[in-house]
Amino acid sequence: MTAFDALMAYQRETSALAQVAGRLGWDQETMMPRGAAGQRGLEMAAMESILHARRSAPQVGEWLETAAANDPADAAQIREIRRAFERANKVPADLAKRIAQVTSEAQGKWAAARAAEDVAAFLPVLDEVVALKREEGAALAKGGDLYDAMLDDYEPGTTGAQIAAMFDAMRPRLVALRAAVLERPKAEGVSGRFDEAAQMMLSRDLAQTFGYDLNRGRVDKAVHPFSSGSGSDVRITTRTSPTDPFNCIYSTIHEVGHAAYEQGIDPAYALTPLGQGVSMGVHESQSRIYENQIGRSRAFAGWLFGRMNAVFGDIGIADADAFYAAVNSVENGYIRTEADEVQYNLHIMLRFDLERSLMSGDLQVPDLEAAWNDRFAADFGYAVDRPSNGCLQDVHWSVGLFGYFPTYSLGNVYAGCLNQALRAAVPDLDAQLAEGDTSGATGWLRENLQRHGGLYAPREVIKRASGMEPSEAPLLGYLETKFSDIYSL
Amino acid sequence: MTAFDALMAYQRETSALAQVAGRLGWDQETMMPRGAAGQRGLEMAAMESILHARRSAPQVGEWLETAAANDPADAAQIREIRRAFERANKVPADLAKRIAQVTSEAQGKWAAARAAEDVAAFLPVLDEVVALKREEGAALAKGGDLYDAMLDDYEPGTTGAQIAAMFDAMRPRLVALRAAVLERPKAEGVSGRFDEAAQMMLSRDLAQTFGYDLNRGRVDKAVHPFSSGSGSDVRITTRTSPTDPFNCIYSTIHEVGHAAYEQGIDPAYALTPLGQGVSMGVHESQSRIYENQIGRSRAFAGWLFGRMNAVFGDIGIADADAFYAAVNSVENGYIRTEADEVQYNLHIMLRFDLERSLMSGDLQVPDLEAAWNDRFAADFGYAVDRPSNGCLQDVHWSVGLFGYFPTYSLGNVYAGCLNQALRAAVPDLDAQLAEGDTSGATGWLRENLQRHGGLYAPREVIKRASGMEPSEAPLLGYLETKFSDIYSL
Repeated sequence: MTAFDALMAYQRETSALAQVAGRLGWDQETMMPRGAAGQRGLEMAAMESILHARRSAPQVGEWLETAAANDPADAAQIREIRRAFERANKVPADLAKRIAQVTSEAQGKWAAARAAEDVAAFLPVLDEVVALKREEGAALAKGGDLYDAMLDDYEPGTTGAQIAAMFDAMRPRLVALRAAVLERPKAEGVSGRFDEAAQMMLSRDLAQTFGYDLNRGRVDKAVHPFSSGSGSDVRITTRTSPTDPFNCIYSTIHEVGHAAYEQGIDPAYALTPLGQGVSMGVHESQSRIYENQIGRSRAFAGWLFGRMNAVFGDIGIADADAFYAAVNSVENGYIRTEADEVQYNLHIMLRFDLERSLMSGDLQVPDLEAAWNDRFAADFGYAVDRPSNGCLQDVHWSVGLFGYFPTYSLGNVYAGCLNQALRAAVPDLDAQLAEGDTSGATGWLRENLQRHGGLYAPREVIKRASGMEPSEAPLLGYLETKFSDIYSL
Repeated sequence: MTAFDALMAYQRETSALAQVAGRLGWDQETMMPRGAAGQRGLEMAAMESILHARRSAPQVGEWLETAAANDPADAAQIREIRRAFERANKVPADLAKRIAQVTSEAQGKWAAARAAEDVAAFLPVLDEVVALKREEGAALAKGGDLYDAMLDDYEPGTTGAQIAAMFDAMRPRLVALRAAVLERPKAEGVSGRFDEAAQMMLSRDLAQTFGYDLNRGRVDKAVHPFSSGSGSDVRITTRTSPTDPFNCIYSTIHEVGHAAYEQGIDPAYALTPLGQGVSMGVHESQSRIYENQIGRSRAFAGWLFGRMNAVFGDIGIADADAFYAAVNSVENGYIRTEADEVQYNLHIMLRFDLERSLMSGDLQVPDLEAAWNDRFAADFGYAVDRPSNGCLQDVHWSVGLFGYFPTYSLGNVYAGCLNQALRAAVPDLDAQLAEGDTSGATGWLRENLQRHGGLYAPREVIKRASGMEPSEAPLLGYLETKFSDIYSL
């Protein structure tokens, strides 16, 4: 057996165990009895400990020294295994353990503080998290930029400076577009009550409409929708609200985008590092293009309007044009996860600047709330009314996810590039979508992006699929055109 | 840290990983998408490989050499860890791997052969399984009896000779009881169609009636009902049939018996070898006493009759006496899992004798079907009509479970002993059960048996709880009295 074969045999087992750990997370959010939370924490910690030991195992280092690649796929496998090996060995086991413990505690304190609208109850433990993450960042960066080292966990090869430049180009145009749209009359919304079982049936139908393979997945409810798993077991979740059916519909389509990426990967890569989405940003590009550029297009919205009338009867919206406006409604709001396409990236820019300052030391945790509120007022034009609408709204920082937020905007930007190329490649796309046929879009995405899994680096796979260097320009152009049309600017 | 503390810290992690592996099994039977079966096999194999490595790890052997027990619980922990360590080291890793591979293949071939009524399609792979299990048995027995070594996996401390003697005492009385009952008129059955959602609601109600804690468990549907998990996450499954509500009801009560045992164990033993039922036989004693001695008692059946009328309206049974007869109906049949209390153990005796002969070499696999059919005709008085009603009906042998069947009968025998002691300890038990109050029964079982988990060896815990050496006499007396009454013998 060659070193490469030995490395891959070991890695396949590690990847299988990672799938098991991931499914524990799925179970926790969908099926687990409430009283099992304590035991579950110990089970998860035991799995993480096994995975860390395998990723950092000395024998992996030895195999890596002599493993030889026969083709680009082998080379990519080695690249990804080496990345995980080096990362696991850079962070001292004791530090990793302390981060796991403190973030577990911090998540609980964050949830309690958010419920109590009590920022002061959260900041001390957040201070600990920030200190530990800076320590980890220093270990990972080895003299380089802390924040870049963190970003590398989620979006390998992208730097904070690149993100900052991208946001500098986006902000003025988005601020201007937002201001113009908000001067116009509001779109009408749905009215009535929507049976939740019917919503879940529609959710499963829509998932299949977007090519989701239920033979290799399933749809359940969760408080915060997510997609989970790789290979032949990729599960999604959605949620229902009796008065807002769009929540269920667009959560489903979003998660199907993530799941379609995983389900679309070349089966030859299953249970290897290439058998999963290559980065958070590329993953988000799939969820966003499914949800927005396809799912919120005028053509598809027209078809969906008919489906909703068929399922629910009168939904309080007069015609397809009004429906299109309703699913693209732009309104003031505090919450990132409820934001529309125009305002979403402004929420991310705020978090990016604040978390980068926390990591550089320019911003101290005790000053976080004031910094958040000042920035929010400056960008959105009104004051944060309570912490759960402000700096306590997201779970991310409590669990140590620094460097994660910008990947949401990168996903939007990548989706803009892909959408431009998709529309050039499939000229009659709108005619297909108007019939509820997404196969032209999803087939193109599968062929040009999804099937590659982790084969190409993030920017490389976007460049190959879209034929251009990733840029914010297509997204901005798409948003300006779309919302000028909807709001008659 | 002492050797004992180090051993236990390592063991807790191993136990947590075993819970994760067990939950994968639950997921496979309840939630897993069909297309994920292949990947799931690799995930399970990776978990088993980790667990085997940990159970047999040299450091465990070193800790065991010097670990000192401060109390009986510590001593029992050491006893159980040593058992697992020695077992894992007796069986060569290569043999364990071949058994895993061949039984995985054999299970598929068994299912196909059963569906096709084609014994010949199954026997070659069964021959391989038998050969490998004999090899494993020889490794475990180290010169002792092969079958005893296998039995020891499921019922430590019990021998094939003990079981044979027990069955010799049971057979004539059960055969006679069966013959007498079958000469009497049949009991009337339920009629009508029973809403399956209502059955599942009743199932959850009944689970709670028997003390099942849904905060630390859940109820789902599965083709073959089972209970799964230990500690604070113990899940059960049941099934529904639109024409036979007793299937759902008594599957639920049976599985709640297993689950109550796990949920009733002293929480101090959680995620240790003592934190789970001590043997298959003792486990089955709990499911059987819940299902039969309690759930099919005249007093409880009277209460259940009222509940079923309240849930379903008229069920086609006139009164509580007729209902009691219906849930204790004795009829001819081929299938073990559908057998009543009188005939069940006859099915087990047949399997016990055949599998013991297969292991000793007295019976060859090609002769299995004829041996089964001859024995069935002799014991039951009519011929097996097709293989799925005969030697292909059970999955056990295909997956290598030799030595498992007799634990079902041991469970019945233990339940007989426990029932005798319970009725002496709680004189007004029937008055409680007639009100649907099982707490006197379940409280006694928890206090006297369940809470001990793995602390005492199987026969020891039955002896402590029942105040007698385990014996088939109470079970036989109970069955003769009960069915003489129902069938007016």
